[in-house]
Amino acid sequence: MNANGNEVPEQVTLRELSLRDGLQQTSSWPATEQKITVIRRAYEAGVREFEVGSFLPAARYPQFADVRKLIDAVAELPGATSATLTMNERAVQDALETPVGEMVISISATEEHSRANIRRSREEAIGLVRSAAEARERTSRSPRILAAISMVFGCSISGEVAPSEVERIIAACKAAGADAVAIADTVGYAGPAQVREMTERAVAVLEGAPLVVHLHDTRGMGIANAAAALAAGARILDGTLGGLGGCPFAPGATGNVAFEDLVYLCERNGFATGIDLAGLIAARKVLAESLPGENLHGALARAGAPANIHWRAYPASTP
Amino acid sequence: MNANGNEVPEQVTLRELSLRDGLQQTSSWPATEQKITVIRRAYEAGVREFEVGSFLPAARYPQFADVRKLIDAVAELPGATSATLTMNERAVQDALETPVGEMVISISATEEHSRANIRRSREEAIGLVRSAAEARERTSRSPRILAAISMVFGCSISGEVAPSEVERIIAACKAAGADAVAIADTVGYAGPAQVREMTERAVAVLEGAPLVVHLHDTRGMGIANAAAALAAGARILDGTLGGLGGCPFAPGATGNVAFEDLVYLCERNGFATGIDLAGLIAARKVLAESLPGENLHGALARAGAPANIHWRAYPASTP
Repeated sequence: MNANGNEVPEQVTLRELSLRDGLQQTSSWPATEQKITVIRRAYEAGVREFEVGSFLPAARYPQFADVRKLIDAVAELPGATSATLTMNERAVQDALETPVGEMVISISATEEHSRANIRRSREEAIGLVRSAAEARERTSRSPRILAAISMVFGCSISGEVAPSEVERIIAACKAAGADAVAIADTVGYAGPAQVREMTERAVAVLEGAPLVVHLHDTRGMGIANAAAALAAGARILDGTLGGLGGCPFAPGATGNVAFEDLVYLCERNGFATGIDLAGLIAARKVLAESLPGENLHGALARAGAPANIHWRAYPASTP
Repeated sequence: MNANGNEVPEQVTLRELSLRDGLQQTSSWPATEQKITVIRRAYEAGVREFEVGSFLPAARYPQFADVRKLIDAVAELPGATSATLTMNERAVQDALETPVGEMVISISATEEHSRANIRRSREEAIGLVRSAAEARERTSRSPRILAAISMVFGCSISGEVAPSEVERIIAACKAAGADAVAIADTVGYAGPAQVREMTERAVAVLEGAPLVVHLHDTRGMGIANAAAALAAGARILDGTLGGLGGCPFAPGATGNVAFEDLVYLCERNGFATGIDLAGLIAARKVLAESLPGENLHGALARAGAPANIHWRAYPASTP
């Protein structure tokens, strides 16, 4: 029981992706030292999971050229975990030479998007999960492997996606060696009822393995979809400070869910995040100052949390 | 069954408040002809409920000086209903001389806010509901009386509000003659779990009388709270085009829920609104052009609805 006489709240883990998904399509990016300051400020506020970049050719993706330095910076912070996107075998090899905590492998929910996006079939993308698990065996490293399924709630190319097809891919990723699976609303098509159903199905297929729900706010449904995911059993959600970012393969898609607003949602609904909102807004300020051309989003940074109600511990049942 | 093989969707009524709540604290306002164009465009898009102003002294509230003309404009539209705020006996008398469809009487959930806001006790405010019902009996008019309870989810002055206290006020308003009751998150404190619980309680107390849920997006929870209200049985929601407006008595409070985004939420969750989104965005454009100093919000007007999924009829159960 906590101070309000309620059960101890369940924990929710929020993954901060501003330095990876947030920088996929910005025209500029923070200097490495600025990125490290963002990480440290967010860490001081209580954030523990940071997706910090991608192992991609620096010539084509200069915003991620410092990914190794950021992995090292996170490794210095007790209890913090770094994650990076590893889109091919070479990236997996590179990642395994670092102390990265999580390798993220992206798999499209639809064959059409898979071929258009990474010029591989979905089967080949799932094969990368398998080869990453095998490559990990040959090293002394033990990063988690997160299979991140994109376009789960509708595809920008092929439209509707059947939940049963997503279930099949989740199971295949798990069988291939993924430690965790993410379901992503890459282009912001989803609505809450849909998120609730798909999350329940994903939790069931995963049989206890961690599920990450990755939402975009393209059509204003991000926080409502996050609430639906929580209600359906998701306990790990993605977000970016100030809602930075989008998807380079999805024209018009702008904005992950704002991390600050996710904190308010979770706490207001009775879930503990371990994150201090004022400290988080300070981290967001550093990010904003390092990206003068970007228009950050999110309501909490503007309005602040209410000062005269117990928003961190809303009683489940009141008189 | 509809074309997708699903049950015929339930109807949700969305009340458009941009010309009343939306103009409470703007520094300028549209000309009467512009207001009428906004109403007509929104009507063409399928909107049927319009809150168009307040019977207040024109010297102090010049933005509402044309309320009678707007009531007349709505009266010309078949099936459309106008509503106005009537904050005292004089306003009720004035309203009863027009073809207005609904008189809205505001009651604070807390004594502290009631006295600070309207310099009346809550009991006196509920007394206005009673005298409005009596005054209506003495005329040939029959506007509905909507008792709108503010600060239901937390008060900017006194903090936490007990749901049991709100239940008591709802019952008192109904006993005093209110035909419908609104519960309002006036300062944007609410979270979805709280909205769900309070909505369930309000529906139960009202025993079939209409419930309106009025939400603000101050802390980014507006759409999530609307989803929670729908899940709990609410079938009438308030919003404003472009999220215009706030509350003059709540410093820092900015923005009703964006009407366009509400349409997407409702339809995506399987509720029929009868509203065409493209037409609605055209109405929003007229409003935006008539308020050059205002920064409108809302994601749908920016991103548009997805073109390649059936967002209006998401199947309740899919393979």
